[in-house]
Amino acid sequence: MAAYQAPALARLIDQFNRLPGIGAKSAQRLAYYVLSMSKEDAEALSKAITDAHSSIHKCAKCCNLTDDVLCPVCKSPTRDKTTVCVVEEPKDVAAFEKTQEYSATYHVLHGVISPLNGIGPDQLCIKELIKRVQEDNVQEVIMATNATAEGETTAVYISRLLKPLGVKVTRLAY
Amino acid sequence: MAAYQAPALARLIDQFNRLPGIGAKSAQRLAYYVLSMSKEDAEALSKAITDAHSSIHKCAKCCNLTDDVLCPVCKSPTRDKTTVCVVEEPKDVAAFEKTQEYSATYHVLHGVISPLNGIGPDQLCIKELIKRVQEDNVQEVIMATNATAEGETTAVYISRLLKPLGVKVTRLAY
Repeated sequence: MAAYQAPALARLIDQFNRLPGIGAKSAQRLAYYVLSMSKEDAEALSKAITDAHSSIHKCAKCCNLTDDVLCPVCKSPTRDKTTVCVVEEPKDVAAFEKTQEYSATYHVLHGVISPLNGIGPDQLCIKELIKRVQEDNVQEVIMATNATAEGETTAVYISRLLKPLGVKVTRLAY
Repeated sequence: MAAYQAPALARLIDQFNRLPGIGAKSAQRLAYYVLSMSKEDAEALSKAITDAHSSIHKCAKCCNLTDDVLCPVCKSPTRDKTTVCVVEEPKDVAAFEKTQEYSATYHVLHGVISPLNGIGPDQLCIKELIKRVQEDNVQEVIMATNATAEGETTAVYISRLLKPLGVKVTRLAY
């Protein structure tokens, strides 16, 4: 913390600097911007962070982020529950939904198998997917993990777990 | 707000999206990152925003941002109070202080004269500078506004106000 900087300002810059993709200069710029905001706007930003953090959790069915027991897609009566599209992250659901072409459901893994980063199958939402296939009337699982080495590995790993359950497993073409 | 997104998450993405330099994709990435933070970290970020916003204001002397009546530079007994370096923004003070070569004081204008953006001399901390030169024993004012058309105009404008007060006015070489 620089001596010429007020501690509260230095703390705010440091907090922004911890966010991904925000370097020292951007953090400073954001902190000064926050100070220039109206009291209401600064409080709205602060409250949005705590509100989202306390109210958002994983959907009991598909593990996408939601503030309810089930996410809007899993709750929807018009969605085809027999088909599940497996994606890596919640942002992938957002990308699919933007196309407005997909009318079935999702399953969010929250990552990919990545031994180099110490992420194994147990840290992902794979057991929730297996349980869904076993208990619900799922007929097709579309593996839509990214076309990276880790995404492919994860798709192959999950496919092998699902095939004995008698469900059709397909891989999304890129 | 997309129907598939929880309202608290959509609000957080929207709040990040309002910050300068944060587009729709970065806002989404930051929001998901906040959700992945520990409760303590999310609260620390939220609190840093409200704390900084409520405790930081302009130094009564130099208009730099501080959480005290006077900023650390103006309070320091070792700083040369007879020389004042006039800068546009608080971040310029941070840049000067990083060089550790400057041992006098600053004056922060909080902008430049910019008729196109509707910013006239009255919206800047110019009257505070004039008051300082009149009342304190200021002997030299160094104009360190940026080498842009607006920065130059502001430097010339302030120089004309200061010269009749018998103070030495110099322009920082770039």
